[in-house]
Amino acid sequence: MITKPAETAELATESATERASGRPRDRILLVARDLFYERGVRAVGVDEIAAAAGTNKMTLYRHFASKDLLVAECLREFARQSEAEWDRLAAAYPGDSRAQLTAWLTKMTDHIVADGGRGCALANAAVELAEKDHPARKVIEEVKRAQRNRLVKLCEAAALTEPEFLADELFLLLEGARVSAQSVGADGPAARLVRMGEAIIASHTPRT
Amino acid sequence: MITKPAETAELATESATERASGRPRDRILLVARDLFYERGVRAVGVDEIAAAAGTNKMTLYRHFASKDLLVAECLREFARQSEAEWDRLAAAYPGDSRAQLTAWLTKMTDHIVADGGRGCALANAAVELAEKDHPARKVIEEVKRAQRNRLVKLCEAAALTEPEFLADELFLLLEGARVSAQSVGADGPAARLVRMGEAIIASHTPRT
Repeated sequence: MITKPAETAELATESATERASGRPRDRILLVARDLFYERGVRAVGVDEIAAAAGTNKMTLYRHFASKDLLVAECLREFARQSEAEWDRLAAAYPGDSRAQLTAWLTKMTDHIVADGGRGCALANAAVELAEKDHPARKVIEEVKRAQRNRLVKLCEAAALTEPEFLADELFLLLEGARVSAQSVGADGPAARLVRMGEAIIASHTPRT
Repeated sequence: MITKPAETAELATESATERASGRPRDRILLVARDLFYERGVRAVGVDEIAAAAGTNKMTLYRHFASKDLLVAECLREFARQSEAEWDRLAAAYPGDSRAQLTAWLTKMTDHIVADGGRGCALANAAVELAEKDHPARKVIEEVKRAQRNRLVKLCEAAALTEPEFLADELFLLLEGARVSAQSVGADGPAARLVRMGEAIIASHTPRT
């Protein structure tokens, strides 16, 4: 459920001027987050990040002890943006969990299209970081579990049947949509995510 | 739908002795395929592949003009194994498309558990190879489209309603299961793939 920084995310609303005048740590984090997302965490090196952030490798390593820890921190940043997005959905449809679910499906589809077909930053990083002891893996696992739990709570609050099973179905559909957009494009099966999600939600709606 | 080489795949049934005595090209391809799958296509270099295949970089480049083309050929090898797996399912349940679908769901779940949570080699490569002009991307896109089409044909043959939509639902569930196994493990939502697939197939079964 983590997607590219939306225009609403705090850091992403910085103008180029603000960004250039920001503290080195913030600049490094911003640049690294975007480069890692666009090209992958293995494809981008610390030299390139330092240069793009208008600083140097020594400064980068003063703020982040290693590239691995910088990757982990970038993923935490994506997680914060995702959390903020959930909170905005809750605020937009207060007390209406069912409407929040529909809005969430629509929002996720918008992201898949808008994010240049790069999908979920955390799922992508999990693919790239096969080594189980990478410090980013703990972040990925925690965030994904938290997102799944948030979805379960929403399905429960919407009084849908088998909320855990339903949440897992929606979770896998979304994960599949975001990864398949990278192989067959956002106009492939991923384009039908909203309709699929609604059909599954309908099948978990108690008959009145 | 591409997973780690099954024991039934031609190349994978080679014993260690046969492998060691095989032609250099075959040895390189075997070793590269496994290393790329286990650790990712960016994480493994040609020096390591050549060494593991008991040859040298010059020989590797005589058979594969570049690492990119070696990656593409490894993905074609995964695609051939996937095709063979579909053919075996068809042979196991001749004329019974509905049974083939169930067997396919079970088989895919087996793979998710057995493959050390590394999911689909082609989807993973698409995540790693963000550059749109990488020679492997054409292979990935062609194979994924062919797999989706095969699923559509199976749903049509099983006389299920809205076969294209159903195939897309199953496609996304599977892609989601395979990528989520890499972030939250094979015992997470991915473990419920068969039940989810059966529920969706049931919802596309005409009422008699």
